[in-house]
Amino acid sequence: MPCTPAARGVIAALAATALLACAHRPPLTVGPTSAEVLAASAAADWRPLDPENTLYLELTSGRVVLELAPAFAPNHVANIKTLVREGYFDGLAILRVQDNYVVQWGDPAEDARRQRPIRSAKASLPPEFERPLAGLPFTPLPDGDVYAPEVGHAGGFPAARDPASGQAWLAHCYGALGVSRGDTVDSGSGAGLYVVIGHAPRHLDRNITLAGRVVQGIDLLSALPRGHGPLGFYEKPSQHVRIKAMRVAADVPAPRRTELELLRTDTPTFAAWVASRRNRREAWFAQPTGHVALCNVPLPVRAGALRR
Amino acid sequence: MPCTPAARGVIAALAATALLACAHRPPLTVGPTSAEVLAASAAADWRPLDPENTLYLELTSGRVVLELAPAFAPNHVANIKTLVREGYFDGLAILRVQDNYVVQWGDPAEDARRQRPIRSAKASLPPEFERPLAGLPFTPLPDGDVYAPEVGHAGGFPAARDPASGQAWLAHCYGALGVSRGDTVDSGSGAGLYVVIGHAPRHLDRNITLAGRVVQGIDLLSALPRGHGPLGFYEKPSQHVRIKAMRVAADVPAPRRTELELLRTDTPTFAAWVASRRNRREAWFAQPTGHVALCNVPLPVRAGALRR
Repeated sequence: MPCTPAARGVIAALAATALLACAHRPPLTVGPTSAEVLAASAAADWRPLDPENTLYLELTSGRVVLELAPAFAPNHVANIKTLVREGYFDGLAILRVQDNYVVQWGDPAEDARRQRPIRSAKASLPPEFERPLAGLPFTPLPDGDVYAPEVGHAGGFPAARDPASGQAWLAHCYGALGVSRGDTVDSGSGAGLYVVIGHAPRHLDRNITLAGRVVQGIDLLSALPRGHGPLGFYEKPSQHVRIKAMRVAADVPAPRRTELELLRTDTPTFAAWVASRRNRREAWFAQPTGHVALCNVPLPVRAGALRR
Repeated sequence: MPCTPAARGVIAALAATALLACAHRPPLTVGPTSAEVLAASAAADWRPLDPENTLYLELTSGRVVLELAPAFAPNHVANIKTLVREGYFDGLAILRVQDNYVVQWGDPAEDARRQRPIRSAKASLPPEFERPLAGLPFTPLPDGDVYAPEVGHAGGFPAARDPASGQAWLAHCYGALGVSRGDTVDSGSGAGLYVVIGHAPRHLDRNITLAGRVVQGIDLLSALPRGHGPLGFYEKPSQHVRIKAMRVAADVPAPRRTELELLRTDTPTFAAWVASRRNRREAWFAQPTGHVALCNVPLPVRAGALRR
């Protein structure tokens, strides 16, 4: 796919030189580098994390910051927050680290009688695999996708949509936060959660509910020792990685919050950012590729204004 | 891209039910699972590693087994083997672990006067970013690609090709082995090597020479602590991960070799394997996707006949 019809449409709307991006070896090296795009960004190009939709996964090694996606999975997001506020995860563990796939955490007790009770949260929920695309702001990417008719970004999340079905869904890119489930699609609750730590397993899209993504600290998960049991589960309880606590950021006193800002995905600056990734202008690159896949667009994060 | 023209062509050649794979939600759940495909494979579906084109990266934590790709980078492969046989890497170190990107190893000495001398190997080589596609057996995948006109497998390696230019090249999938270089394209030699440990950085394709891939033990690299210096380099020498040795498997006494077999990528069994990944038939999957991206096709490895 040197240049998809969708790409031609988008690119035709840009400056004439951009048409070269459709050639076999796109020489579109004129323009700012990724670093220059960020350096030239304005305050309004960034948005703070919403503390009410931010989770902290507190490990002995540090804090993983996760942004929830209520626009895609409102019921799962609400249930996860209820579980977190009930202290459900405190003292539970990371149970599974499957190389090039996922890290998963929850209750290590296999015997149902010994499992931590779920109090006011729901024990299972109908799936939220997709939602109507109507009403969802969406910034499309121009280069096509192997799995979906359209891909792009919605409210800072990598996502896909299908005009034919009228549906949109979150994509399983690196760092995606998902809700574990059993063989039935309505068997997940949020009491088991996972994060993608490998090449995007896009075949999971619309097969399991995604509820957010990691915005800081993923290396506290991705560098964990791999499990060597089936599916990458740790074989011994001694290998489990203890969760000190999970918290909704809004419940944490302000001085102990991790204040972060994310580059908005609905701005000209983000369009320039994507352009700088489609054709890398750094001196090292011999051949700009002229394309970028959904899960290869980094989503910039910086310290919040009070911490810079 | 719900169904590319290439996909339609391939699928039209299959049974009539397979045509459904082009529908929005492909219900192609009939057929063997991935596990069933492997269970039904014949001895001839597998090939042993060639000891002369297999490297062992020996770490304190264990052995990483790498298969070299002389069909794509003959000069770099030859030079890497010369370096290995000179003992160049023995006692050197892993210097860089950048999350969701690469692990890189080589000489930690920054002062050129203290660096290990390269003896009979070449200190730099012309790039081998691509090769003529003529004469290269290639098993295409049907679902398109964001970065290349055609993708598939060549001799067991994920690869791409462009009929318009007549060129083929290796793809930067998870586990790819590459040759570090500086800003000039002919500055690499193999004295610095890297392995992809994150989402496929396909923008590196044809920008840097790939020379092989990891076939076993990648978690010894992917689970290493991340470096927090620029580009993921370790900031302190004490963080460096020591390389006990690198060896060409042919130079290791047979009893100490890691005998492995790889599923051939030019067989009907591999086609069935790909089909089982395009539409997952395991009970857990609610929606088979009907597509698979190049870097999402696992390449099966099993113990060699003498070890099974």
